[in-house]
Amino acid sequence: MAIEYDGSGFSGWQRLTEPGEPDMRGEPTLQAAVEQALGFVAGRPIEVVCAGRTDAGVHASCQVVHFDGPAHRDPRGWTLGTTSRLPPAICARWCIPVADDFHARFSARARRYRYSILNRAVRPALRRQYLSWERQPLDADAMHRAAQALLGENDFSAFRTVHCQAPHARRDLQFISVTRDDDIVHVEVQANAFLHHMVRNIVGSLLPVGRGEQPETWLGQLLAGRDRTVAGPTAPSAGLVFLGPRYPAECGLPAEVAL
Amino acid sequence: MAIEYDGSGFSGWQRLTEPGEPDMRGEPTLQAAVEQALGFVAGRPIEVVCAGRTDAGVHASCQVVHFDGPAHRDPRGWTLGTTSRLPPAICARWCIPVADDFHARFSARARRYRYSILNRAVRPALRRQYLSWERQPLDADAMHRAAQALLGENDFSAFRTVHCQAPHARRDLQFISVTRDDDIVHVEVQANAFLHHMVRNIVGSLLPVGRGEQPETWLGQLLAGRDRTVAGPTAPSAGLVFLGPRYPAECGLPAEVAL
Repeated sequence: MAIEYDGSGFSGWQRLTEPGEPDMRGEPTLQAAVEQALGFVAGRPIEVVCAGRTDAGVHASCQVVHFDGPAHRDPRGWTLGTTSRLPPAICARWCIPVADDFHARFSARARRYRYSILNRAVRPALRRQYLSWERQPLDADAMHRAAQALLGENDFSAFRTVHCQAPHARRDLQFISVTRDDDIVHVEVQANAFLHHMVRNIVGSLLPVGRGEQPETWLGQLLAGRDRTVAGPTAPSAGLVFLGPRYPAECGLPAEVAL
Repeated sequence: MAIEYDGSGFSGWQRLTEPGEPDMRGEPTLQAAVEQALGFVAGRPIEVVCAGRTDAGVHASCQVVHFDGPAHRDPRGWTLGTTSRLPPAICARWCIPVADDFHARFSARARRYRYSILNRAVRPALRRQYLSWERQPLDADAMHRAAQALLGENDFSAFRTVHCQAPHARRDLQFISVTRDDDIVHVEVQANAFLHHMVRNIVGSLLPVGRGEQPETWLGQLLAGRDRTVAGPTAPSAGLVFLGPRYPAECGLPAEVAL
């Protein structure tokens, strides 16, 4: 099932309580909200596994989850029934049956994210839920050139939060672009997988290059140095959208999540 | 001064209380919020006149207001000072001194709006604050062709709410386009001025054409009939953004609001 969400009012994807238990305190989690809606449609508790957990305040246009559900509903019934039980900030976009060995996380060969920065003198009002803000003029072309140093299979320790629990920091960065659309600068990036805060830390290190405070060679130097403490700060969550995972064609999923 | 706002939580532009009085009940008005922030920066009460009043829930990327303020602040000071006193849903984008005879409403020669419709089976979650929703497939090309019948100086009684207080219904519609960008259909329209609910009523009558329920000639027929009761329903406010007014070059305003 593909899930779209505005992560503004949520403490992130991952449920912090036992399956079926309500969120304990603070802001709700997306996983608990989705499982509750699915459980209502299924008529029994449902646990989901997602393609990529997102942090508090991060959005998704196409999160993918798998679950074992009863076969008594058609895909359209799952999509519309689940959406009708979800809060306004979340919807199900589609749902299709998959093979028993499909796994939303382990079957995915890549993940894609987009980060959007409003680049002007005053903070955003319209669409502020989906933008970060930089008041200094950004040279998007310089950022783009600098970012290309990250391409390929590398150790991304320089862009990994200290809280990251991954056993190693090697990731294959397949694509990264920085483009300007009027007063918005977009960073789009695809990798086989991402470390915790990796996109926001890469953006945080591209910003000094865009402002002209660091040379275009800086990203390559940071990568080689593997030292998180000298890289830029973590960019805010609001600008980040998980565009979705990518699966091999043989999984039979819709084109937007196929390699 | 140019003002950008997310109209979601507001009862519309127009202040319903006396100048300087707080909003009495229900949702706040944009005008009162802007006047309060400006008054703080000016150090005395300020009343503003806007280019085009927007209804509850309607957004603006570039509303323009004029006011008489003390000369002790530079334009940048007005912009940043006012924004710092505005709620997150509103900001000032720029501010420049104008001639004494400039009038935000009467000097404007045109206004431009954009209406955005998410066209897919399920309701929006991401960006839902700025989209309306149509689940039936829309033929945007047919809508575009149908809309061209509205061009020119016409009596728009068919697209005017019964509450409209304008003395007559003649308006000069200068431009209208319907375009598709993936699963979003945009209607962009410019006229010398608009009647109350005119954009949303035009969109409401374009939708049956897009769904194939009415022929492409329908818009022209509705226009000629001048009968509001046979046209389509008013489209929801969330999809509508006031892109801004247009002034003659001699007003000396920034390019985005110049003819």
